[in-house]
Amino acid sequence: MTGPPNEATLWARILVEELADGGLEAVCIAPGSRSTPLTVAFAAHPDVEVFSHLDERSAAFFALGRSRRTGEPTALVCTSGTAAANFHPAVIEANQARVPLLVLTADRPPELRDSGANQTVDQVKLYGDAVRWYAELPEPRAEQRRARSVRTTASRALAKANGTLAGPVHLNCPFQKPLEPTEVSGAVPESFTETPAGSGRDGPYVRTTQGRMSPSPKDCRTIAQELETARRPLLVAGPADPVSYSSDDSRGVHPETVARLARAVDAPVLADPLSGLRFGSHLEKSSDLPPVYGGYDTYVTELPAPDIVLRVGASPTSKPLRQYLADSSARQFVVDPASEWREATFTATDLIGAEPTAVFEGVLEELADNSGRETTAETWPERFAAAERAHWRIHGGSVDGESEKPEPLEGSILSTVFSDAPDPASIFVSNSMPIRDADRFGRPRAAALTVLANRGASGIDGITSTALGAGSATEDPLVLVTGDLAFYHDSNGLLAIERCDVDATIVVLDNDGGGIFHMLPIEAFDPPFTDQFKTPHGLDFTSLGEFYDLEFETVDPAAFAGRYRESVRSEGTQILHVEFDAEASHRRREALAERVRESL
Amino acid sequence: MTGPPNEATLWARILVEELADGGLEAVCIAPGSRSTPLTVAFAAHPDVEVFSHLDERSAAFFALGRSRRTGEPTALVCTSGTAAANFHPAVIEANQARVPLLVLTADRPPELRDSGANQTVDQVKLYGDAVRWYAELPEPRAEQRRARSVRTTASRALAKANGTLAGPVHLNCPFQKPLEPTEVSGAVPESFTETPAGSGRDGPYVRTTQGRMSPSPKDCRTIAQELETARRPLLVAGPADPVSYSSDDSRGVHPETVARLARAVDAPVLADPLSGLRFGSHLEKSSDLPPVYGGYDTYVTELPAPDIVLRVGASPTSKPLRQYLADSSARQFVVDPASEWREATFTATDLIGAEPTAVFEGVLEELADNSGRETTAETWPERFAAAERAHWRIHGGSVDGESEKPEPLEGSILSTVFSDAPDPASIFVSNSMPIRDADRFGRPRAAALTVLANRGASGIDGITSTALGAGSATEDPLVLVTGDLAFYHDSNGLLAIERCDVDATIVVLDNDGGGIFHMLPIEAFDPPFTDQFKTPHGLDFTSLGEFYDLEFETVDPAAFAGRYRESVRSEGTQILHVEFDAEASHRRREALAERVRESL
Repeated sequence: MTGPPNEATLWARILVEELADGGLEAVCIAPGSRSTPLTVAFAAHPDVEVFSHLDERSAAFFALGRSRRTGEPTALVCTSGTAAANFHPAVIEANQARVPLLVLTADRPPELRDSGANQTVDQVKLYGDAVRWYAELPEPRAEQRRARSVRTTASRALAKANGTLAGPVHLNCPFQKPLEPTEVSGAVPESFTETPAGSGRDGPYVRTTQGRMSPSPKDCRTIAQELETARRPLLVAGPADPVSYSSDDSRGVHPETVARLARAVDAPVLADPLSGLRFGSHLEKSSDLPPVYGGYDTYVTELPAPDIVLRVGASPTSKPLRQYLADSSARQFVVDPASEWREATFTATDLIGAEPTAVFEGVLEELADNSGRETTAETWPERFAAAERAHWRIHGGSVDGESEKPEPLEGSILSTVFSDAPDPASIFVSNSMPIRDADRFGRPRAAALTVLANRGASGIDGITSTALGAGSATEDPLVLVTGDLAFYHDSNGLLAIERCDVDATIVVLDNDGGGIFHMLPIEAFDPPFTDQFKTPHGLDFTSLGEFYDLEFETVDPAAFAGRYRESVRSEGTQILHVEFDAEASHRRREALAERVRESL
Repeated sequence: MTGPPNEATLWARILVEELADGGLEAVCIAPGSRSTPLTVAFAAHPDVEVFSHLDERSAAFFALGRSRRTGEPTALVCTSGTAAANFHPAVIEANQARVPLLVLTADRPPELRDSGANQTVDQVKLYGDAVRWYAELPEPRAEQRRARSVRTTASRALAKANGTLAGPVHLNCPFQKPLEPTEVSGAVPESFTETPAGSGRDGPYVRTTQGRMSPSPKDCRTIAQELETARRPLLVAGPADPVSYSSDDSRGVHPETVARLARAVDAPVLADPLSGLRFGSHLEKSSDLPPVYGGYDTYVTELPAPDIVLRVGASPTSKPLRQYLADSSARQFVVDPASEWREATFTATDLIGAEPTAVFEGVLEELADNSGRETTAETWPERFAAAERAHWRIHGGSVDGESEKPEPLEGSILSTVFSDAPDPASIFVSNSMPIRDADRFGRPRAAALTVLANRGASGIDGITSTALGAGSATEDPLVLVTGDLAFYHDSNGLLAIERCDVDATIVVLDNDGGGIFHMLPIEAFDPPFTDQFKTPHGLDFTSLGEFYDLEFETVDPAAFAGRYRESVRSEGTQILHVEFDAEASHRRREALAERVRESL
């Protein structure tokens, strides 16, 4: 590598070098002038994959999705000005969903801020408290201490982004002209050592490592005793945090460990579709009474209250489940390595700041030998099993076929998406109705389905981009299930299919507006219901598919399963567009749930 | 009006009532659940026009555009979560461009924040320092003091948004269920007086008025003396701040007053296309040496330096002009009512915190009777006039016809846009190349052309929405000139054409990527120039036009003028799509400028 021709180039090269040495594998870049040094440095680095985007909002969600899937930070680069503000929605989602993200915003040099200079906005702490760390790089100078600080900052940024409470980090990077790799005589003396040498400096300039939040043996003993003596113990797994896809990550919830504990204490596991427990090989070993349940959204409120609850992950998607837990007077242990509060009914009794798997392992060790144990109420696991069977009899694969004449229902599409997905597959589910239907219609299955959603802030923005970003990280077939509003909202995100070379099966559940509002009391007030809430748009997405040069097909609900199976096994991206009447779909959804409850 | 059925409804009704009484005329609403009380109240109010949007980012830019055009606050409503962050780019633009905007973000009640509750993010001071005022409404209660505080807050918010330094105001509005107008027995007692009576309370609960920033006579005298004794006096008008379209607004730059002063002291007026001075009826009275010049971008650096400069408005679009002023050693008076610093070369000598028109009037009063005055250098105004003639001979209406064989040039489209626009018309110009070409090719004209752009932060985001928002405010024909990247970036904004009933002529200058980068040194470094800067996308916008059900036509540059004249006189929205080779266009643009400079 020749010496850097000027200070801006030097700075960006140092930064990118350290990030790559620290493990950064990918960056999303939106074109711009002020960010030229960063863009040039990233484009030149052999170990960082560059994804080029035109809309910064979509770029940020794409990076979010990739990080969501890999559990490793993805970098984001934009020029100065409102470009950086377009990252904000994804930064907030990353904050709340604990997704590591490294936001690099180019900025003008300090003297140009608040001066009337063009495209210069106040980027200092632009994302407020939504980032784990904000830092501003020093202005580029060929000075060793400054250069070392940039190297150190790169390592720290990656460590902060991927700490116990993973999330976004914002580095603001001021540059002055020349921004291009134009030779500036004397700017970077030949004597300036670009690559630092020294003992132990064979990787990143600073290696950062991090310990594991281990629970105290006392806590494990307490939980073990409670579980052993409980008559109605319950394990609840909410949406999981991202976990590094490198195999040695001790974080996260290990399904086998959870299953082992559940069997040991005879506790049902209520597994959110995003928990990492509803789908996976750990379900293969299931006995007649599988410990992992997925249909509880319809029936849980009909069952007796638990007397001890052990919770991991974020607040569950299912509102009935949240209500059920709040209404119980059970002792509730909430396990979170970051000691954050993640249940908004405020009924949890114990907050355990430790890694879930470490807690489960610790509890298993503390359990007395309970072979032949008959502590649990006789009917406790059986009632869950019976309810679960009833739920899937009515919501399962037979959703289309069991009643006299199957009526179209959005949930039946979700049912098929999960039951007929290849193994392995990544399935990204939009907020609003799709995630609720995934919760209710996604039947537990012994297949490596990585199910993802943006449940940090639960917006319907950036859905397509997040899914495609997740898809960019693996060779797994990618499925996105989205509603028409979310699909429209991030229509710009579709550009990444070609530009970033991601294939997907995109299922658009089109009920012409906000179908979810039919679930809310506002439905009874029209006006303004139709114009301001349901907001029908009448858009024909066929031409949007053409615009992005994608295979687009409007599929009859009855024909969906066949087309879906074809698509997930074929190359390229297909959009399977399925139309529904939101109100009818909602009524039938309610009717099915009622049938489950009546059967109990 | 019947009494409010619950506290949330009461609160929203009070807020909207006060805003409407305070003069608020329009609101942009994106659908959502938490914002239900606000949406219902706005939809029910007879005096506030509701524009329904699906993408919050586009909604915010639409509101921005409307406020930009009217000079009056437009409200924005969204639900809790990332929706609010999607407003951020437009809020930043509003901040920097001084556009009054009232952002109402619905929020969960305080106890749900940072609790793991769904769709709950930290909205407190979400936009940082980019707003004039942040306030949080008290939680709804049928208590008189609280209710009065909401009324007062509404008035204060409007006053802050439209103060001397106009800009965005953010009110965060926590609501708890029921959000719909559902009867809650006893929540709002019959005895609770919804509409306050009292002496003087026949309009808004609190009327707010604001004085005018008047200059000191001493300052006016100083400026008058300097102008009178100067040999090369110069007036520079940068982009103007929004001014209320109500006729009695004393703010802003009044063209007649500027023209009067310019004639009195024999000073050329260099008028930015966004200054409000380059186009207008004040130009009708022009003598042989018109005081208003628009072609300076090509020639100003060739002329002698001024010895006294009086500047109003924001920093000019023209980089050569900024350089010319920086290189002069002239005394530079910068007039700004908000005493902000608006010139990033840091060469201004005097910052006058007063309304420009008040300053001009004051200076005119202080001028000695200078009839027959011969202070100015003999050749000073004449040299500008000669250069201006040369500029328009080469860049003017004859751009297409004067050379042997006219070559396509993006600037010639801008030339036609201005020369052939109806009188009156609103013309919105995108950032990046279009505004630079508007500056160079937009010939001064005695027609009421309201020329607008987002020059606060100069982003290419939200351009279509901002233009349509501006168009929603008047009956003037609306023209939008945008590049392909900006057009793609805010493609969602096109939905407003039908939903918000706005007609426009949309001119898309398509050079398949970032043509502006050909102006920058990075052009010489390929890679990464093509992939990361120019970023060709190959999108065929025809199907995007179809998606939004718009008349779309790809027009040959030679045929543009005819199709443009037809479109601006016809109903409905037409997209005139003109393709260019960015590099060739850039070279020819440079060649034309060189011809002007050579002719001097």
